[in-house]
Formats: sequence, structure tokens, C-alpha cells
Amino acid sequence: MRYNNFIFLLNDSIQNGHIQRALEAVATFQAADLADVLAQLPMKNSLTLLLALPERAYVFSYLSAEQQIDFSNALPRATLAEIIGEMPSDKRVDLYKHLDEQHQNALLPALAQAEREDIRQLAAYVEGTAGAIMSSEYSTLKPEMTVAEAFKTIRLEAPDTETIYLSYVVDDERKLIGVVSLRELILAQEDQVIENIMTKEVISAKVTDDQLKVVKNISRYDLLALPIITENGEMVGIVTYDDAMDVASEEATEDFLKSGAVHADSKFSLKSAPIMLLYRKRVFWLVFLVFGSLLSGIGIAHFEDIIAAHIVLVFFLPLLVGSGGNAGSQSATLMVRALATGDVQFRDWFYLLGRELLVALCLGGTMAIAVSLLGYFRGDEMVSLVLALSMLGIVLIGCLIGMSLPFVLNRMGLDPASASAPLVTSICDATGVLVYLFIAAQFLPI
Amino acid sequence: MRYNNFIFLLNDSIQNGHIQRALEAVATFQAADLADVLAQLPMKNSLTLLLALPERAYVFSYLSAEQQIDFSNALPRATLAEIIGEMPSDKRVDLYKHLDEQHQNALLPALAQAEREDIRQLAAYVEGTAGAIMSSEYSTLKPEMTVAEAFKTIRLEAPDTETIYLSYVVDDERKLIGVVSLRELILAQEDQVIENIMTKEVISAKVTDDQLKVVKNISRYDLLALPIITENGEMVGIVTYDDAMDVASEEATEDFLKSGAVHADSKFSLKSAPIMLLYRKRVFWLVFLVFGSLLSGIGIAHFEDIIAAHIVLVFFLPLLVGSGGNAGSQSATLMVRALATGDVQFRDWFYLLGRELLVALCLGGTMAIAVSLLGYFRGDEMVSLVLALSMLGIVLIGCLIGMSLPFVLNRMGLDPASASAPLVTSICDATGVLVYLFIAAQFLPI
Repeated sequence: MRYNNFIFLLNDSIQNGHIQRALEAVATFQAADLADVLAQLPMKNSLTLLLALPERAYVFSYLSAEQQIDFSNALPRATLAEIIGEMPSDKRVDLYKHLDEQHQNALLPALAQAEREDIRQLAAYVEGTAGAIMSSEYSTLKPEMTVAEAFKTIRLEAPDTETIYLSYVVDDERKLIGVVSLRELILAQEDQVIENIMTKEVISAKVTDDQLKVVKNISRYDLLALPIITENGEMVGIVTYDDAMDVASEEATEDFLKSGAVHADSKFSLKSAPIMLLYRKRVFWLVFLVFGSLLSGIGIAHFEDIIAAHIVLVFFLPLLVGSGGNAGSQSATLMVRALATGDVQFRDWFYLLGRELLVALCLGGTMAIAVSLLGYFRGDEMVSLVLALSMLGIVLIGCLIGMSLPFVLNRMGLDPASASAPLVTSICDATGVLVYLFIAAQFLPI
Repeated sequence: MRYNNFIFLLNDSIQNGHIQRALEAVATFQAADLADVLAQLPMKNSLTLLLALPERAYVFSYLSAEQQIDFSNALPRATLAEIIGEMPSDKRVDLYKHLDEQHQNALLPALAQAEREDIRQLAAYVEGTAGAIMSSEYSTLKPEMTVAEAFKTIRLEAPDTETIYLSYVVDDERKLIGVVSLRELILAQEDQVIENIMTKEVISAKVTDDQLKVVKNISRYDLLALPIITENGEMVGIVTYDDAMDVASEEATEDFLKSGAVHADSKFSLKSAPIMLLYRKRVFWLVFLVFGSLLSGIGIAHFEDIIAAHIVLVFFLPLLVGSGGNAGSQSATLMVRALATGDVQFRDWFYLLGRELLVALCLGGTMAIAVSLLGYFRGDEMVSLVLALSMLGIVLIGCLIGMSLPFVLNRMGLDPASASAPLVTSICDATGVLVYLFIAAQFLPI
């Protein structure tokens, strides 16, 4: 509430032309918080405040993609070009890619030559690659420079670089040959030569590498930034740890939503997404999974006689079939996450299958004992036996399906994270019905 | 394969006492890669290599918790104390907490007084709080220092601090009053006073704050490190961005596994976890969910007559019930993730419920039309009507359950991420059976 009151008063100040007072009120705000404020003010007053902010381009880059587009449409073209020119290059190209073609074409001529070129180059990289998330603002040093000269270069370039804590050493062909941290520079003597203090084993990624590889390298080696190079080893950009954190979070969200059979291909907000977008993200899987359920129905129809003769079987149907689906979902979830974090590789499949078999035997055994007791009280010894055998078989098969599906999907060129709980459940349900009623048909008289 | 061959040769060198050759072979390796090498060598030779490494404590801190304990048990106590003394303080206390009481008591007297105190203090913080993940190695400045003096202090403390890129300014009572980055120091004049160039609005967290709050702050404000303070504002530690990335990844894994009904309370590896640990992590939910399935069974038993009269109903049972579970899983997944990333808050529940109702109506409507066509071809108009109405009702109820369950769990003091797909499916299955057969009983003759 207090925050809303603050926004109300701030809006009032701007409305009445007291822009200086408004600026004072937000003087101590961080860029991320300022972006929140801008998002909550009415567009007209929000624009007034934005244009008056000392670090407007920096704050602007903290707005969400939708908000940036709204502001872009409301700003005069020359002012927009000015702000875009001042934005960090990775944020700038993100915005550019979100604009429709008409706006893109209107914007480009208003930008300076260098920025135009930069946008064109960065926008050319495919979404999901290292190139698409990198920034072109980093400082480079020559190997023959002294530490004192390096400091001079770094100070000079500081306003335009994403980080001054790492400088990359390139040769005359811009090939990456070393990296030196500000920590190392500070601890070195002024007359030492960069070539002698730089680290020559540089961890880097190619522009075409998957963005997840960038995240994994930054996380594994605790890097502040990862240099991005071309096939020829020329340095073209860096990805900083904060952008890597954002990518990691987006990828985790995507996998998480896929695990719940929600189609996830872009950043979106549950709170602000249009109803029809939410509908579209969910309807495909819901309809697709109908076919799995139909298989279960066909299985049931096939064994109508045995069901009619032993109606007690129906009572246990949801329990047996459900347990298989649940065990399978667990296996798939464990496998998908372990693949995503790099804990296991696709080549480990055979080894993991063996372990899974053991775990499934223990789980299936426990469940079989429990369900056979239930069956004994509601039916007889034979029903109890059928239930125990079915439970063991269904849990075993469920686990093996859940564990294998991510690998199968990957082999088919699909994302293993698509092995969602609902998908695994649907497959296990159909299998479970068949196993259960088949075993029942063997042991029980019709 | 080539990597295995390398390990083979390396092991051979160490075995034959050519430790210098082994060191040369791994001279360019990063700490994380060295830890991998150590984990793959036989313990005896691995120890020999570790003790010869120039940055052994740093490499040691990259080993997994289980590996560190194995090494700790194999090392002479004095050597272990030496290594532990050199480790970063946050990694050191993690290891200490993993040791059993006997080893803890044996270790403490072997450490220097300062390290002992440090471990005791850090180990006192509750798991999951900021205090439990912070490091006590950071550099502090006094407000009255000049930039030149600050550089001297930073250079002096550099070997013992987690980051030299941020220095925290504290008053005589160690209260945090400002922060200054190395970037700002480099760009300032040597005779400027720290108080005049420091940022006075410092984003910090309390020792007792949830570790997720630390991650969210570091990510939101793109910080290199977050200072941790006591209730009184005294500075006691920092959490660096790389540790925050690890926490974020662990939390995402935990939520992901919960979504698949796998009990997740600690870091563990699918590849190396003991079979019985995997069993224990899964068996609780499998058995618990049996009760949900039993409810479905009871529902079916209750409507035996209507099923017997219209056997076609059984054919559609998995489809209808499954769709409700699937839609519910989607809702729960969307909600759990949005809560975890901070996209939505618990106070948004009512607003989100309204939106969910609209989405559910669209989804239910689509599915109702599809299933009523199927029903018309396999049954008659009345069956078709029953199917359409049931589908609409089941999807609506499923979505509302899926959306609400995370909130209900939170109100009960449980983790909203426990609203797993299998749990939601079980609840929606039982509800779906009742809705379907109840509607059928209203429209169809027995």
C-alpha cells in the first residue's frame, strides 16, 4: 500500500510539472527499481520521468520486452534512437529483435553508423546461441602493452564496457590469446608486460555454441564473463555472469513448464500474459494427450469380459494404473533435471537403466506388498496375487518408460524436457491397463 | 575415451613416483577440471597429486561434498587442518558441517584460533539462510581513507578476499555505511576521500534472511556480491554471485524434483546416489498417492450400476479423468514456477483465479467439443452431451484445483512446490470420476 501511495504522489508531481521534485524522490533508486516505477506510472508521465533520468538508457534496459516496445512506440523517433544508442549492446539488439519490421526499418536510419552495424551483426545470430546473448562492449589489450598502458586503456574505455574487471588480450588479427583480470593488474608492477602476466589458457565459447554451454562454463569455472569467439578464434563478444544468470533462470522456467506439459518457448509472465496466449500454450498438449487416454480406453474395451466377471478389478484400476504413472513421472523428472544440470550424459543411459531397475524393483516390491494386502481384504488370494504381480510389473515398466523417454526424445531431435509428467502418465496409464488386465485374464476365471 | 587414457597415464606417472611430470601434465587445468581428475584417480594417488598441487585448498573446495569427506578421512589430521585452513571460509564451513561429530571434534583443535572461531560462527547459522551461505572474507575500508590508502588496503588483503572488486565501508562499530567498487576507485583521483565517492544506498540482506532473497537481490540488481548484516546493521559476510548461481541452480533442481513427486531436501547426484537413497526419496509420495487412487476406486464402486448399464462410459473414463489431471498439472506448474521466480505473489491469488477461470473455460470448451464428437460416433446424442458437460466441468475443476493447491499448501506452512503433477493428478482423478459418473447418472437411464 505504501508503495502505491508513493507512486500516486510521484505521478502527481510529474503531472504538475514538478519534475525536479520527482527526480529527487527517486534519486537513491536502483535501475531495476526505477524500471518498476516507470512501469506503474501512466505512459505520458512515465515518459516525462524517463527522459529526465540521468541514466535513462540504463534504466530503460531494465524494462521488460513488452514495456520497452510500448515505450518505443510512444517515443519520438529521434529520442528513441538516442536512448537505443546509449543502451548496452546486448539489451539493444534484444529490443531491436522484438520490434516489428516497420519499426525496425524506421529506427535504423536514425542510429549512428557504428550502432547500426553492431545491431545488424548481433541480430544475425540464431536465438539460443552464444552469439544471440553476447555483448560487443568489452576492453581489449595488446600483448606488448605494459601494465601502466593497460590501466590507461581500461580507464579510457571504462564508460563503454560491460565489465572492466576482465580485459582480453588479442593479437593483430583480433585472435584471442589471453585474459588478464583487474585483480592481476592491480597486484602487478607498472612496468610488467601484459604478455607475461596474462592467463594464456582462456576458457571461451564459439558464437554458434548453445547458450546453455555458456551458462555451464560460467558457472563451472566461476567466471565473471566468458569471451565469445568465431570459428577462426577472433574475439567478437562477451557474456557476463549476470546475463548468464538470467539465461539459467529462463532455461529452468522453460524446463519446469515443459515438465507440466505447458508449451514454453519464450519469456512470458503468468501475471500479464494475454488469456489467449495462455490458452495456446496449453491446448496443444491437452489435445495431444487425449490420444494416450484413448489407448487406455481401447485397452479397457478389449478386456470387457474379465472386468464384467470381476467387478472388484475396476476398484483397483485407478490405483494400479496411477502408481505406474506416478513412478514413471518420478523417473522422468529425475532424468530430465540431471540431464539439464549436466549431472548425467546421454551416454550414461545404459548404466542408469540398470540402477533404475534396482530402484524400481524396491519400489514395486513395496507397493506390491501393500496392494496385495488391500486385495486380500476386498477380494481373495487370487485377486491378491494378480494385484501384487500387476503392481510390480506396472511400476517396473513405468520407471523404465520414464527413464528412457527423455533419451528417446533426444534421439528424435526433440527436447528431453518434453518428457512431461502428463505425457509419461498417459503412456504409463495405457501400458498399465494392458498389463493389469492381461495378468488378470491369466489367473482369474471368466 | 581420450580423457580416460589421459587419466590412465597420469595415474601411471604418479604410481611410478614421477609427480613432477604429473604436475606438468595438469599445469594448465582449471580448478574445477583438476577436481574432476582427482575424483577419477585411485584415492592413494589422488592424495599424492592433491598434496603436490600449488593451489590444493582451492582445488579441494571444488570437490563434491562426498568426495571431500572421503579425502578428509584419508588425510592425516594435520594436513587436513592445513588444507581446511586455506579453504575459502564458506566452503570450509560447508565441509565442517558435513563431517560427523567425531571428525569435527578431532579437527577443531588442529586449526588455528581464528579459523576455529570462524567455523564456529558460520556453522551456527540455520541451513537455507543468508548466514549459512555467506563467506567471511571481504575487504573493508574506513570512510575517511583516501583512494590511494584504499588501494593499499585492497592490495594487502587481496590474497584473502573472495572479491577485490567490491569493498565495503564500515564505521567504527563495523556498521555497513557504504560500498565502493574497484571501477569507481580506478576512475577516481588518488587523493579523493572514500566517503565522498562511495555509494551510500547499499543493498544488503540480514543473516537470517532466506537464501532465496539473496539470490533474487543479486540477480535483480546485477550485483557481484551482496553484503550480509546483523539485525544491528553490522557487516558479517558477503555472498558472491557465483555462490548465488549455485544456490539458484540447487533451488531450481529442488522445485523441479518436487514437481515430479520426488522428495528433495539436499544436493544429490542421480548418477552417484546410493540405490536406497533414491528409493527413500520416492517411496513416500508413491505410497501417499495410493490414497488418492483409492478415492477414485471408491467413486467407481459407488456408480457400478450406471457403468454396468452403459459400458461405453468406461471407454471414455481414462480420457475425461486424464484431461482433468493434465489441465490441473499445467495450472499447478505455471503457478509454482511463477511463485518461485517472484513473477506472482500470494496476494495475487484472487486475480489469478479469475484469469484461470477464463483460460479453463476456453480449454474445457475446446476439449468438450472434441470429446462430444468422439462420443457421438461411439455412442449417441445423450452420451455425447454427457461427455461434453463432464469434460467442461472436469477441466474447470482441474484448473482451479491446480491453481489453488500451491496457495493452500503455502497456507498450511508447506512448500508450494509440493503441488506436484502426480499429486494434482491424483486429486483431479478422484474428482473427475465423481463428476463424470454423477453427470452420467443424471442424463442416462440405468
